[in-house]
Amino acid sequence: MGPPGSPRGGVSHAYAADLEMIQEARERIAPYAKKTPVHRCATIDALMRPARVDLETPHDSDVSLFFKCETFQKGGAFKFRGAINAMLRLGEADREKGVVTHSSGNHAAALALAAKTLHCPAYIVVPEGAPRCKLDAIETYGGRITRCAATVSDREATCARLRQQTGATFIPPYDHPDVIAGQGTIGVEFLEQVPDLDAVVVPVSGGGMISGIALAVKALNPDCLVLAAEPGGEMGNRADCAESKRRNEVQMDMPPPETVADGLRARLGRCTWPVVRDLVDEVLVVSDVDIVRAMKLIYERMKLVVEPSGAAGLAAALSPAFADLNAKSAGWGKTARCRKVGVVLCGGNVDLGVLWKSYGL
Amino acid sequence: MGPPGSPRGGVSHAYAADLEMIQEARERIAPYAKKTPVHRCATIDALMRPARVDLETPHDSDVSLFFKCETFQKGGAFKFRGAINAMLRLGEADREKGVVTHSSGNHAAALALAAKTLHCPAYIVVPEGAPRCKLDAIETYGGRITRCAATVSDREATCARLRQQTGATFIPPYDHPDVIAGQGTIGVEFLEQVPDLDAVVVPVSGGGMISGIALAVKALNPDCLVLAAEPGGEMGNRADCAESKRRNEVQMDMPPPETVADGLRARLGRCTWPVVRDLVDEVLVVSDVDIVRAMKLIYERMKLVVEPSGAAGLAAALSPAFADLNAKSAGWGKTARCRKVGVVLCGGNVDLGVLWKSYGL
Repeated sequence: MGPPGSPRGGVSHAYAADLEMIQEARERIAPYAKKTPVHRCATIDALMRPARVDLETPHDSDVSLFFKCETFQKGGAFKFRGAINAMLRLGEADREKGVVTHSSGNHAAALALAAKTLHCPAYIVVPEGAPRCKLDAIETYGGRITRCAATVSDREATCARLRQQTGATFIPPYDHPDVIAGQGTIGVEFLEQVPDLDAVVVPVSGGGMISGIALAVKALNPDCLVLAAEPGGEMGNRADCAESKRRNEVQMDMPPPETVADGLRARLGRCTWPVVRDLVDEVLVVSDVDIVRAMKLIYERMKLVVEPSGAAGLAAALSPAFADLNAKSAGWGKTARCRKVGVVLCGGNVDLGVLWKSYGL
Repeated sequence: MGPPGSPRGGVSHAYAADLEMIQEARERIAPYAKKTPVHRCATIDALMRPARVDLETPHDSDVSLFFKCETFQKGGAFKFRGAINAMLRLGEADREKGVVTHSSGNHAAALALAAKTLHCPAYIVVPEGAPRCKLDAIETYGGRITRCAATVSDREATCARLRQQTGATFIPPYDHPDVIAGQGTIGVEFLEQVPDLDAVVVPVSGGGMISGIALAVKALNPDCLVLAAEPGGEMGNRADCAESKRRNEVQMDMPPPETVADGLRARLGRCTWPVVRDLVDEVLVVSDVDIVRAMKLIYERMKLVVEPSGAAGLAAALSPAFADLNAKSAGWGKTARCRKVGVVLCGGNVDLGVLWKSYGL
């Protein structure tokens, strides 16, 4: 594998999506999805660690962070982009029969909202034990919930039965070309808003978002680093993306991570792994404490509501690993280290019940 | 007193500030203060009650809300506008000696931040018992804290002593022409961003913000209603602004309101009362439950962090009193009822300790 910044093979049409598909997706979803704003925060910039090369002569970091606020996307997370793109790609007859997916997270709510937007049914298979607030979101958007046991076999059988009964099309949460292309529109927008980004930090789970963004960013600006933020417990254990990259072989059978970031518990898939393997420059593993501290900064300093998964990118940008990488990057042939760093705040769907309870609601 | 919308005497130069002062303030503070964005939320629009005239033929409300996000202002609240304007109006020699105020709230933090921005000292007199998080904010911005007893006499004596010792200028939180003019820049910006607003809803406490906004809005668009949102307990008791308007006589000696909105506990002053008397069309009194429910909507649906005071405007817009007023407004000679309604989200400085504790921080 080549050095980061000049990945082996560059951007290839052998991947599940490419820049052209992403550009088309962008036009396709423009009437429905929001162009989300980019925020900055001087107080958080001042917290960025100086790169290790600077440690002997301490001074303020000159890194500036640019936050892409997908929290303001329809449905409160980036997932709407991929969901509405996949639905719009269906033929009219198929679209009218509706869509089906299994999830209790942001993808299910986004697909329900996309279906509602296009006046089609969305059948959502939800495992027993899913939290009430997630079911509420799906129901708010008119999703038709079918319960199943919390096993892979029952989940797949329930989906298959629904497809047979209704003719609905299965839209997976990330491992699908149209979903990846939809999420890639974040990358195109971000580089329009901040053309000279030196790096972009993106939370990784199934890899749909980071694949799409990497395909867009590496095609538009090959010098921009694409960095994954992955939750991994105190010792970095159970971080499948980091482990897959280390071994250069996808680790699909690792146990799911135990993390506060409930949106980041999936594993890389067949469509997303090749992109992550070739176009993601480094994986930064963050602990739950890092994530919650980053979340607190975002609430207190930026006045934005994010879910834990949404804060993982900032946690990674604030990590010693990023400072190390930033110092090393000069040695990777870049004329300067990363001064302008994009961070994707990918979602804001969080249960704040404890807060409302404290106010007597 | 004339009907709302055409206040007695119109905009008079007898008030503490006028549009020209506000326009000048805007140019003066432009290099330091942010132009805050306007957000919208379809889900909250759908919750707006139809005006009473429509109740016999129920249908969706066609009211759209436009939220002016002062939560994103420097220091997390609108107060920075007035503080930096007042400081910039000082002569250079006076400015270097610094400023003094008594407060434990957003004004103190904003003044400390304004002083830090201009490299001057800020002396903040804080009564015993002020919450730790407020002290932290003042200290973060370099404010020099002096403690005093929680009595008016000790507070004033402490301020007087500091002024004598340091030569610092006293900048009050609201009852001052330059502070009012600074807050008025919100109104000028808002009407540039949404020129055809039919009404603007502004939380009221000491009245600095609503005075400034009313002076700007009534000069630029006399047909735009200016509505105050005031916390008032379950029975509307202790709402001094509403009571002052009802009696057409300022009620400065009412006991402070017991409200969750800790930023809205001050009383109207000598500079702000005449403006409120003449240019505020109506006062909408909201309960603590209304405020917390509005706050919850803003977090969950708009993904914005607001403090309780910052949610009072939305609470008022969602109230039956606003629906009544909106229905009546047709009878006030307006050609249409209020369809485009501005709401000022005035601040986001809230202690979320209970949330971080739940995450183990």
